Amino acid sequence: MKTEFSLAAWAARAEQALDQHLPKAEAEPRRLHQAMRYAALGGGKRLRATLVYATGHVLGDAPERLDALAAAIEMIHAYSLVHDDLPAMDNDDLRRGRPTVHRAFDEATAILVGDALLTEAFAVACRSALPTERLVEIVGTLARASGSIGMCGGQAIDIAAVGQTLSLMALEDMHRRKTGALIRAAVRIAAIAGNADGAELAALDDYANALGLAFQIKDDLLDVESDSATLGKTAGKDDAANKPTYVALLGLEGARSKLRLQGEAIDQALQRLQRDSSALHAIGQWVAVRQH
Amino acid sequence: MKTEFSLAAWAARAEQALDQHLPKAEAEPRRLHQAMRYAALGGGKRLRATLVYATGHVLGDAPERLDALAAAIEMIHAYSLVHDDLPAMDNDDLRRGRPTVHRAFDEATAILVGDALLTEAFAVACRSALPTERLVEIVGTLARASGSIGMCGGQAIDIAAVGQTLSLMALEDMHRRKTGALIRAAVRIAAIAGNADGAELAALDDYANALGLAFQIKDDLLDVESDSATLGKTAGKDDAANKPTYVALLGLEGARSKLRLQGEAIDQALQRLQRDSSALHAIGQWVAVRQH
Repeated sequence: MKTEFSLAAWAARAEQALDQHLPKAEAEPRRLHQAMRYAALGGGKRLRATLVYATGHVLGDAPERLDALAAAIEMIHAYSLVHDDLPAMDNDDLRRGRPTVHRAFDEATAILVGDALLTEAFAVACRSALPTERLVEIVGTLARASGSIGMCGGQAIDIAAVGQTLSLMALEDMHRRKTGALIRAAVRIAAIAGNADGAELAALDDYANALGLAFQIKDDLLDVESDSATLGKTAGKDDAANKPTYVALLGLEGARSKLRLQGEAIDQALQRLQRDSSALHAIGQWVAVRQH
Repeated sequence: MKTEFSLAAWAARAEQALDQHLPKAEAEPRRLHQAMRYAALGGGKRLRATLVYATGHVLGDAPERLDALAAAIEMIHAYSLVHDDLPAMDNDDLRRGRPTVHRAFDEATAILVGDALLTEAFAVACRSALPTERLVEIVGTLARASGSIGMCGGQAIDIAAVGQTLSLMALEDMHRRKTGALIRAAVRIAAIAGNADGAELAALDDYANALGLAFQIKDDLLDVESDSATLGKTAGKDDAANKPTYVALLGLEGARSKLRLQGEAIDQALQRLQRDSSALHAIGQWVAVRQH
């Protein structure tokens, strides 16, 4: 049986879940809480939260059950953007079409906003009404995906790689950590919440892995093909910063062809699920055609 | 029945637990992992880990059961020091008698080291073999204590307070968040692990609250009374940075008297426990007489 879904409705639902689970702007310390809300609310593609809801949908789970997890993973994502934008890291002024947190507030506040969003994400996840044995597995999954062999490790490799020529394998290793790990975690935590069996977990992980790569290849393509106004962040900055990208390594046509291959890998992984996976399929389509 | 204990042995045990639970130095990305180990190992008073073991000891828990929690809370503490020392925050060059992480490595690495230590702390806590319903409560307690109304919030208030005259109440509110919250969490997570009842939780929380205040008052006193070589960090920096302290507000004698009052509050709280609480008492003594 096919059930209705809307990616836009899930993204809006994630925004509401964030609004509800973030500290209130009027609670002390107010400036920190206002900056946390500035960083986490008002924009963003909500890809990770949408993946949580979509995976739940495929497994027959109601979105209400997943709100805390959706908010938690978007808070982790928002923290990573705030810290990546810092002067000592990518030194970026623009994010989602607005000044970055350290520009809108100040650098010390931006460091604390990232720290607090990351920490509160675990507090929010713990508030989820899921069975505790699954919740422990979910929190551990989130932490490993964001930690030193996951997202933090990917950013460390990224920083060390500026100005270097990476092999395709090294570039993929970096992206698997930097953006791929949290995208895989989004699917996996919803799969754990939805009691997926071993074969389903494996198929979903293959799906998320291909999706994460597709997302990054498209990001590299957009950096070349688009402009800052459409992107909501500085366009052309990879090339300006001499960063290794799929376009730099494979050329425009090579990168586009690799993106199509990920689309095929996504289809194959979803076929193995033997469920109505149209929601996850739609996210795969969207990732490949998005304009920002 | 009185049982033997050694604060020094617990501190050494925490060091071993950290060594075991931190990512290995030879695992990729190596520079990040080496910097994480530099930040977390080799020194430190291990007050928070010792509180975990001592609380367990008072409640009849073996230390083996608490190693992951002891490592996790020291990782959270280490992360907070790395970020507090950053140029945009306290801009400190010396910590535990060695160059701070951003001096020994670089600023981007120091930001990532803090992020990764914080994140991995939750992964480590989840590895604990405690019953999952207690583990979820413990992880939530750690996250709330470290988050925006706890440690991060305290640091935000601290930064905003530089150069300002604070009331005693505002100073205490700041310290209750900045250092007190994690000290209370150390006692509380071990109390949850040890299945303390409501009255015991309340007595232990009052103990930890007084201990946290005593720790901070002593810190302010040491900043005035000691030298950098003994402290292992820059002495006299509170006054130089025009930071509000107990000494600035109450004078030397006033601060010493307030420290004695916390000692009495500690004794009273421990009496309510109706257990052999000599281990927690010894930590209270140590906090008041320490030289660094």
